[in-house]
Amino acid sequence: MHKKVAVILSGCGVFDGAELHESVIALLRLDQRGAQVQCFAPNIAQLHVINHLTGEEMPETRNVLVESARIARGNIKDVREAKAEDFDALIVPGGFGAAKNLSDFAINGANCSVQPDVLALAQAFAAAGKPVGLICIAPALAARIYGEGVICTIGNDEGTAAALEQMGASHEECVVSEVVEDAQRKLVTTPAYMLAQSIGEAAAGINKLVDRVLELASHA
Amino acid sequence: MHKKVAVILSGCGVFDGAELHESVIALLRLDQRGAQVQCFAPNIAQLHVINHLTGEEMPETRNVLVESARIARGNIKDVREAKAEDFDALIVPGGFGAAKNLSDFAINGANCSVQPDVLALAQAFAAAGKPVGLICIAPALAARIYGEGVICTIGNDEGTAAALEQMGASHEECVVSEVVEDAQRKLVTTPAYMLAQSIGEAAAGINKLVDRVLELASHA
Repeated sequence: MHKKVAVILSGCGVFDGAELHESVIALLRLDQRGAQVQCFAPNIAQLHVINHLTGEEMPETRNVLVESARIARGNIKDVREAKAEDFDALIVPGGFGAAKNLSDFAINGANCSVQPDVLALAQAFAAAGKPVGLICIAPALAARIYGEGVICTIGNDEGTAAALEQMGASHEECVVSEVVEDAQRKLVTTPAYMLAQSIGEAAAGINKLVDRVLELASHA
Repeated sequence: MHKKVAVILSGCGVFDGAELHESVIALLRLDQRGAQVQCFAPNIAQLHVINHLTGEEMPETRNVLVESARIARGNIKDVREAKAEDFDALIVPGGFGAAKNLSDFAINGANCSVQPDVLALAQAFAAAGKPVGLICIAPALAARIYGEGVICTIGNDEGTAAALEQMGASHEECVVSEVVEDAQRKLVTTPAYMLAQSIGEAAAGINKLVDRVLELASHA
């Protein structure tokens, strides 16, 4: 009945962590659709800390799991504790945290690697044929999770799309209110704040992604 | 046409700042209803920093405006720059930040005072007869803003309700999906996470609050 969904967060704030709006919108939609959610995050230091008022780096260190706990109201676990067998689906919101903490895509682009615990978990979902939803820039992880030919979107940013293609992904352009689905791999992606000009625009695509991921989980 | 709404944030995280879910839900509903939003926060140090994973205090200092900028994706201003005349309504999400940073209610209870810039702004909205929405624990500010007899709710917590009454407010019990309205003062309040057992429950009341505040703004 109630689908169990794992959500991987990557900090708390668009410029150095998980995008807050995307994360909360996904959690809200999941709850409204009756899903049971458990948040996870890697227990590692953030790449850096950005002052979100000025955009400048701050001389601090913060922990991804500890800061992600702000989004989860404390109800969060180390991603190492997550087992794909305990869940029906996986969702990863965007924000620079996906490209700075869950991977090093922000630094190494097409040569990036994914944080090992996150990669292992996502690959376990993929291997089990369980649906995965990647939001915003999180599809930068798709080629590393699924390998060559995986179909996904980050909207229409040419540079980012080219990097994803270079990694082996097949990028499809997508408007902010829609999702792209790799039917074979049960991967659903949506551009969210890669394109959204407002929180309402981000919500349109994310709600569609959540609904589709839950639908795929029900067909499993 | 498009109502202009000021939102006062109090940091970024339920235990030491603005409640993230409440803040994002309010911003989303405002956007979906066509409102133009500007976020503000006081440019002061947080009372303290709480590790949201363990609940323990961290040996750090963080700034309320800088951390609130995480919720606002950088689009936020010092509350001193806010003028009630530029807006149709004001909304203040909850979280301990309302009781620790916007006021010292968490420490001094019924003897609390409200941060001076926040108080001045909220009182300007009240004096202008413009609607105000206070979410969760933020109604702890109501008696200081409006004076004796102001009608509001924080749900049904007896201790908190008693403190509000001691300050001069008239507390009405309220379920999580509803709002309490002081029609004379155009103040709308809802319990949100004072009662909510899930993000969906919090959203039900907050959406109603946002809708009613915008309705009151349209009648002005």
